[in-house]
Amino acid sequence: MSNHQRFEPSISELARGLQAGDRAHLSRSITLAESTRAEDQALFSELLEALPDRGGAVRIGISGVPGVGKSTFIEAFGAFLINQGKKVAVLAVDPSSERTKGSILGDKTRMEQLAKNPLAFIRPTAAGATLGGVANSTHKAIRLCEAAGYDVVLVETVGVGQSETAVRHLVDFFLVLMLPGAGDELQGLKKGILELADALVINKADGENRNKATRAKAELRQAMHFLQPNESGWTVPVLTCSAIENLGVEEIWAVVEKYVHATRENGYFAANRRNQQIHAFDLQVEGYFKKLLDHPRLRQTWELLRSQVADSRITPDQAAQKLWQSFLAGSLLS
Amino acid sequence: MSNHQRFEPSISELARGLQAGDRAHLSRSITLAESTRAEDQALFSELLEALPDRGGAVRIGISGVPGVGKSTFIEAFGAFLINQGKKVAVLAVDPSSERTKGSILGDKTRMEQLAKNPLAFIRPTAAGATLGGVANSTHKAIRLCEAAGYDVVLVETVGVGQSETAVRHLVDFFLVLMLPGAGDELQGLKKGILELADALVINKADGENRNKATRAKAELRQAMHFLQPNESGWTVPVLTCSAIENLGVEEIWAVVEKYVHATRENGYFAANRRNQQIHAFDLQVEGYFKKLLDHPRLRQTWELLRSQVADSRITPDQAAQKLWQSFLAGSLLS
Repeated sequence: MSNHQRFEPSISELARGLQAGDRAHLSRSITLAESTRAEDQALFSELLEALPDRGGAVRIGISGVPGVGKSTFIEAFGAFLINQGKKVAVLAVDPSSERTKGSILGDKTRMEQLAKNPLAFIRPTAAGATLGGVANSTHKAIRLCEAAGYDVVLVETVGVGQSETAVRHLVDFFLVLMLPGAGDELQGLKKGILELADALVINKADGENRNKATRAKAELRQAMHFLQPNESGWTVPVLTCSAIENLGVEEIWAVVEKYVHATRENGYFAANRRNQQIHAFDLQVEGYFKKLLDHPRLRQTWELLRSQVADSRITPDQAAQKLWQSFLAGSLLS
Repeated sequence: MSNHQRFEPSISELARGLQAGDRAHLSRSITLAESTRAEDQALFSELLEALPDRGGAVRIGISGVPGVGKSTFIEAFGAFLINQGKKVAVLAVDPSSERTKGSILGDKTRMEQLAKNPLAFIRPTAAGATLGGVANSTHKAIRLCEAAGYDVVLVETVGVGQSETAVRHLVDFFLVLMLPGAGDELQGLKKGILELADALVINKADGENRNKATRAKAELRQAMHFLQPNESGWTVPVLTCSAIENLGVEEIWAVVEKYVHATRENGYFAANRRNQQIHAFDLQVEGYFKKLLDHPRLRQTWELLRSQVADSRITPDQAAQKLWQSFLAGSLLS
């Protein structure tokens, strides 16, 4: 597990290299950020202190079911942004992923053109056992990309479990890619995801799909009517795009820019970032306290009581009291 | 605050009276269930042990924005059920309510006809500081109503904050009442509520509203397409109704019966009830552990660190470590 040997540069060298835009140094810094070793964490704190807190990138979350064409979209979108003179970083959040080192190759193959571009940085899925852990690493990776001068950070999520919600807490703008089928084909949509979106983009709106995409757009606009307006005061647009034919990409960036402008004006942008920082902190505190609950004896009693409660052999109240007593009896804080 | 004097009957008398269907005894039992006094809680445990665990009622949650006509609907629905030979209990969950004793009169005035009917039992909003507390009391009240032989328990919620989610965890079937306006008028819909619903009912589909209601029905059916199918394998129907003209009420009950039949067949009904029991238990355990976090010194440090994190004066990691250390340093478990 230990790849401590790989952190050969000193912290000040890392900080310098990273700020000079050296991708190898950025990569090493992110690996340090992902490490769960106490000494690496201390080194990372040192590194953060040596870096300015720029926060200068536009952070965009990108989600959508498998097959929606996320990689192709990111290739097209990334290429467009680079043409606009921007530096683009791509991070991925996928807590379900079993990929480890192999994923570096994996992600780079998925986005071949972008991977070759010196103005792009592609980082594979952060390793980590829990979604909270992965989100935390990604939060740090975003800050490192910003210190390295990236203008746009794309955070991709595969849409498994709660990962969209986690990514929503990391980004300024959340984009949901959809397929150009209406009704049944869209039913697979994850619960609640429409409510996280700042824009819906119907991808693959090309060839025979064009009419379907137009219909889906109208229906989605209708559906969005039934959801409460976005917290930011923003009306969620529904767009179509063909990543493969490079159509609609420019319009999507225009929407992002409009959003950033509007929310900077009304103060939501900054407030959202502050809240995200606090959220990251609260998550970590929660993590510490959850460890209390992970004591094996406590968990065992808990499970036993759960099955008794399920069978109505004990009331929820009585069971909760019992569990609490057993918690207090063992000095679990040692 | 103490109304301990009112619990004059012994526990065995209460249990007997309650099972004989005496509404005064039922009412006193619920008051006992709501009490936070340790001795009352012990008495309540005794009472529960003296009662059979019937679980025999169909538990229906009813939600909708203020003005949607919940009281009128419950009057009409309750009267219909009583005509079918059923005993009907009405409970309410409203953690935002400042109402205490006055609410008894309030609820009974709201549902005047039902309140007079000897086959109906109307219980006002449970008092309680937290939603968790109110939900817990309501959970117990449902069981008491069942022991008293009620066939249908209606749990009304006003739709403030997280109360719908809490009620969803207490009932077999969740019905959302809506107004017959489409688009803008429906935008006030609470986030996520469509995903909790087992049926959507457009109320006030009468007079001039009839066309609007039909349009809203079509649009809502469309919107529901975009949400994942219900966990129970149930397709959420959209119905119209006029509580005031007593139209559509029978169809709603037919839908509930169909649901109960289908979910009993496929095992979801029983599994859901088991999970609800476990959920009630977990909520209470959470409550105990939350008390740990409510230690004033800890809260103070937490808030201080939050503002430092928001201002980027400290990283979320460092702040979480600090807070945890301060927690460990104080022996907060005393």
